[in-house]
Amino acid sequence: MATHRFDPNFTDNVVNAIGPNSNPRFRDLMASLIRHVHDFARENELTVDEWMAGVQLMNWAGQMSNDKRNEGQLVCDVIGLESLVDEITFKLASEATDTPTATAILGPFFRADTPYRDNGANIVTTGVSDGEMVFMHGRVVDFETKTPLVGATVEVWQASTNGLYEQQDPEQQEFNLRGKFRTDENGRYWFYCLRPTPYPVPDDGPAGKLLKLMDRHPFRPAHIHIIATYDNYKPLTTQIFDRKDPYLTNDSVFAVKDSLVVDFVPRKDDPQAGLELNYDVKLVPSEEKAKGA
Amino acid sequence: MATHRFDPNFTDNVVNAIGPNSNPRFRDLMASLIRHVHDFARENELTVDEWMAGVQLMNWAGQMSNDKRNEGQLVCDVIGLESLVDEITFKLASEATDTPTATAILGPFFRADTPYRDNGANIVTTGVSDGEMVFMHGRVVDFETKTPLVGATVEVWQASTNGLYEQQDPEQQEFNLRGKFRTDENGRYWFYCLRPTPYPVPDDGPAGKLLKLMDRHPFRPAHIHIIATYDNYKPLTTQIFDRKDPYLTNDSVFAVKDSLVVDFVPRKDDPQAGLELNYDVKLVPSEEKAKGA
Repeated sequence: MATHRFDPNFTDNVVNAIGPNSNPRFRDLMASLIRHVHDFARENELTVDEWMAGVQLMNWAGQMSNDKRNEGQLVCDVIGLESLVDEITFKLASEATDTPTATAILGPFFRADTPYRDNGANIVTTGVSDGEMVFMHGRVVDFETKTPLVGATVEVWQASTNGLYEQQDPEQQEFNLRGKFRTDENGRYWFYCLRPTPYPVPDDGPAGKLLKLMDRHPFRPAHIHIIATYDNYKPLTTQIFDRKDPYLTNDSVFAVKDSLVVDFVPRKDDPQAGLELNYDVKLVPSEEKAKGA
Repeated sequence: MATHRFDPNFTDNVVNAIGPNSNPRFRDLMASLIRHVHDFARENELTVDEWMAGVQLMNWAGQMSNDKRNEGQLVCDVIGLESLVDEITFKLASEATDTPTATAILGPFFRADTPYRDNGANIVTTGVSDGEMVFMHGRVVDFETKTPLVGATVEVWQASTNGLYEQQDPEQQEFNLRGKFRTDENGRYWFYCLRPTPYPVPDDGPAGKLLKLMDRHPFRPAHIHIIATYDNYKPLTTQIFDRKDPYLTNDSVFAVKDSLVVDFVPRKDDPQAGLELNYDVKLVPSEEKAKGA
């Protein structure tokens, strides 16, 4: 414990105020949070004005948040916290060195009410003049046995070429660049989408202010969000990244993992798309509790 | 540094993303905050669901906050953070072992627009049937020379006997139990108020939820808030506490200091008040930069 010139009993008093009927996990989390927050304040000799600037920034994040935007989440994202808890949660769930498909953060633009579309559909319902069309396809399989999973759900969402998801952009049709697909009898899914393009996270709120103050750019490398689910298998939340993206090594929310980087390749003789992406998703049965193995 | 099984370079990558043009103090604070938050997540193996519960709680705090209520501040208060940064700031400002009047937290119920009243006024403008009236008086003096400070401002505010400040309670007149007073030619101020009573901090929001989850009571010991200001002196924010209060040793926001505990004594022959409180405020000239002394 660092030496300091402040009341040496203060933090213990706050921690020890937690009552005996608190949930044990909650108690441990709060005790640790209190110790870290107090240490942060003491180590930096945080002043009342600096603390209050932080309070106002967090209040501002809450005030900007609604059913279409989670600014508190975005503030966590730009300091890497969502990617870190994603890594922790994934490791707790798998506890394997060589993992199935790696996870990545959900991000603040997921929508729970995205509709199903037929395989082969084009999720670009609001056209763009500056985009490259991609035929994306692949299989959902059992990680170990490689058995195709029939009727699995693959949900995708991506930003448009202007950097905005449909709920951020009144010019885009609702559910543009989103869709859920069910795998066919061979475990296959396929649809048309845009080659993703890099975009800045919204910088009109506290997350943007933090980025500016940290002298950092707000860009995320081009990516497609994926959630894959199947009965009795662990749901998978991930993102896949374009290997050619200039922001691959300095994602503003620190979500890139090597195993999630993919190659878009030229596609011939398809009037609907000049590029192709073949991407298989590997799921792990939910009963396979590898923890402790 | 604790050993753990997560990406050992992750936190350094996030910290090192801070650009060269960031303000040095801001950079130090963010780097330290990122390290503590990441250590907190790793040490506790914080899951995505637990983190998201925290995000939603902080967003909720922002959404409840307005010009009459600062719930983000209250969340900090119940984990002792405001009291801690108050101690730090006070120590930085004075760097003296024996200090003038000790400071205490501002709390979320201060109002910047409180009006001046004449000395001798009664700040109880909305009467109560269950309160004890107090004649509070004293002087504002220079800490070292004891010279009375003429025309200094003493601002006070307190909750009513129902535990509510006027802005929380539609039944109370605006500015009930608040007032600013100017010291007379002898540096004296005097007015009538209520003997303060203990009350719970608002528990209908995230701070209350945290208290419940921590199995803690929401009560603050009875207190009167004071801010004293005088040209070329350091402004003082403090609270004084009733020695007889049952919550003196377990304040829900950890703001009590021994030197701020006062005694209300019987007052004779005053039809307006049965109790009296004599309280002198000692201010320090602002040019007295004791830091480093």
